[in-house]
Amino acid sequence: MALIVQKYGGSSLESAERIKAVAQRIVDTRRAGNDVVVVCSAMGDTTDELLDLAAEVNPTPPAREMDMLLTAGERISNSLVAMAVHALGEKVQSFTGSQAGVITTERHGNARILEVTPGRVQEAVDEGKIAIVAGFQGVNRETKDVTTLGRGGSDTTAVALAAAMGADECEIYSDVDGVYTADPRIVPDARKLDNLCFEEMLELAASGSKILVLRSVEYARAFNVPMRVRSSYSTDTGTLVAGALEDIPMEEAVLSGVATDDSEAKITILGIKDEVGEAAKVFRELADGEVNIDMVIQNISNSHDNKTDITFTLPKADGARTMEKLRVLQAAEGWEDLSYDDQIGKVSLVGAGMKSHPGVTADFCDALRDAGINIEMITTSEIRITAVVRQADVAEAARAIHTKFDLGGDELAVVYAGTGR
Amino acid sequence: MALIVQKYGGSSLESAERIKAVAQRIVDTRRAGNDVVVVCSAMGDTTDELLDLAAEVNPTPPAREMDMLLTAGERISNSLVAMAVHALGEKVQSFTGSQAGVITTERHGNARILEVTPGRVQEAVDEGKIAIVAGFQGVNRETKDVTTLGRGGSDTTAVALAAAMGADECEIYSDVDGVYTADPRIVPDARKLDNLCFEEMLELAASGSKILVLRSVEYARAFNVPMRVRSSYSTDTGTLVAGALEDIPMEEAVLSGVATDDSEAKITILGIKDEVGEAAKVFRELADGEVNIDMVIQNISNSHDNKTDITFTLPKADGARTMEKLRVLQAAEGWEDLSYDDQIGKVSLVGAGMKSHPGVTADFCDALRDAGINIEMITTSEIRITAVVRQADVAEAARAIHTKFDLGGDELAVVYAGTGR
Repeated sequence: MALIVQKYGGSSLESAERIKAVAQRIVDTRRAGNDVVVVCSAMGDTTDELLDLAAEVNPTPPAREMDMLLTAGERISNSLVAMAVHALGEKVQSFTGSQAGVITTERHGNARILEVTPGRVQEAVDEGKIAIVAGFQGVNRETKDVTTLGRGGSDTTAVALAAAMGADECEIYSDVDGVYTADPRIVPDARKLDNLCFEEMLELAASGSKILVLRSVEYARAFNVPMRVRSSYSTDTGTLVAGALEDIPMEEAVLSGVATDDSEAKITILGIKDEVGEAAKVFRELADGEVNIDMVIQNISNSHDNKTDITFTLPKADGARTMEKLRVLQAAEGWEDLSYDDQIGKVSLVGAGMKSHPGVTADFCDALRDAGINIEMITTSEIRITAVVRQADVAEAARAIHTKFDLGGDELAVVYAGTGR
Repeated sequence: MALIVQKYGGSSLESAERIKAVAQRIVDTRRAGNDVVVVCSAMGDTTDELLDLAAEVNPTPPAREMDMLLTAGERISNSLVAMAVHALGEKVQSFTGSQAGVITTERHGNARILEVTPGRVQEAVDEGKIAIVAGFQGVNRETKDVTTLGRGGSDTTAVALAAAMGADECEIYSDVDGVYTADPRIVPDARKLDNLCFEEMLELAASGSKILVLRSVEYARAFNVPMRVRSSYSTDTGTLVAGALEDIPMEEAVLSGVATDDSEAKITILGIKDEVGEAAKVFRELADGEVNIDMVIQNISNSHDNKTDITFTLPKADGARTMEKLRVLQAAEGWEDLSYDDQIGKVSLVGAGMKSHPGVTADFCDALRDAGINIEMITTSEIRITAVVRQADVAEAARAIHTKFDLGGDELAVVYAGTGR
């Protein structure tokens, strides 16, 4: 008998009707001979509605109270799913994050899971019950306060629970039936992938693919929990994310897909002294402000004046405050110029096959050149190439690369609406 | 410095605007030099909406899951009130029933408070914080499962917390500004009472007054917690419920008010054997079915055939299943007839003054006779007279008694809409 952990996102639970459909799927999984543990996000728009209410009573609500408020959302969906499963005749019990033993750091709004002690959940499973666990939430061990895990928290709850319980597979249900070679809304002939290794999924998630949250994939990789991306609207087996890069035989390694990201901006510092420690000052300043910088390029020094240029990308959301900090530094350090550009986009190609296929970078650049798209920055990792281009060119760039590497399928991809938390 | 516990009902918290008004009142109480602990019900229609959702996914949901679902309502209102208080610049912390130490029996949906251990709440108060506690909910000590306290549960939470913390007063806020001599919707010149003793309030609550739930008054009386009924829409000081009947000087004892109740039905058994143990069989059967019978009358035996008649009232909600049980018993015992009448109503007069004023019962009967209303049953206690009349006559009976005993004021009463949980 296998132990399957299933996670259902908000769009899969947006109405009583959808909840009943999910309950049927849970019960089917159980009756196919599996133990089943289910993790639920909040129903459809619940979280947004609660956020709106909070904004009305306090524009800067305390984080602890915000967590208390938002966790009501999963409590509601969770107990309703339990009721719906019960209506189908299976034994069932719901658990809050705290009851399921999800112990976190005390950072409200963005806590990290420290440990999962699923004793009560395991007991319920041993008694033949289906266990329904509220996602996105945990409890801080010291103060016993309720915490939330931040964006994608329910995925992380599911993976952490699967790891702690030694589950055979962690199924992540949403309105998309798997991981595609590209976003089907941009690349119509995008093809669903049957499987990926953890590193490939990590690179895709880090490059802008929204299908799985980076943190949950990191967790799954660390604890070697196979994840399966599936749609709650179809019976498709979805995409299996499992295994390590080094375990893929070279002859089977392929290119997995193209990811795009238009959430970043670019900052360029011109005429910074080309001396030891000068760039470090910049990045120390950004790290202290908890700004996640992504691509960094330092140009070759202009030998005649001993000065250089630095360019890096960062989330647009951090743009304004980062520029404020850097303007202060510019005055102190005497940089020649400082510029901010939020009209950029990133396009990335990911795949284990890159290791064994020389010339991929050259083909990548050719594809963009042939499409008349200028590359502003480019970086590579072992299994990823990323280019920064004009934001207006991102979709065309993705299509050009997708075609160049023959990633498409014979049929047009099916696209469902919405995304889950 | 006094410690005030305030309880706000659902209609006082039905919107962000109302929540902000409640927060202002809480902060005003704090700034007047009091320690403040607040108990909140769920916002306006939240509970009904959650009940509707539950009914859609499962017509007979498990009680444990129902409690998990419904307690989300108080979690939402509670954290929003905390945010609104925070926005006004006071230190504040919210608590679930479990965090506030509300320990209950394990009977889901209708648990009873066993004990309140408000260590964390007291700590917050000692740190100068306003504590906001979710009403209606507790935790079962054995299984650590969330429980709910049934109808009026938030009032009970407030009184129990006030008792455990040695509060100086427990204020119950709703949309009514006090206890009236009668329901102002029935008796337009009903007068607000300034104070009542616990026994009078208990008799009024037991006789159909909806202003306070019987259970919370019983709790307040047992632990001698002064309760004050107030409106969250006005600054009126409301009605103080405090003190024991025996402490009221005879010359100050007055008649408090008239209560009406049309939620009961009447069952009559004709021709039951007038022997020891025959009536006991009937009442044992009802007790086993957890039917709360109220008024009971056994008529004088018809001496020629050694048979008698028994009439009693019970909640209409229990009528159908009780009649089913009794029909079985009728067949076994050979009663002559068994009848059910749900077109009755009760009208009661309550007041400590009854003890010291002989002739109240006679005046009560005169008032109904003069209004042309027939009395079907009548019972009395030390400080209460209750008559069963036709349901269509209840309002007229209340007005006649109210006038006869000169309970009215000079002005018409103010009536607000809705009632809280």
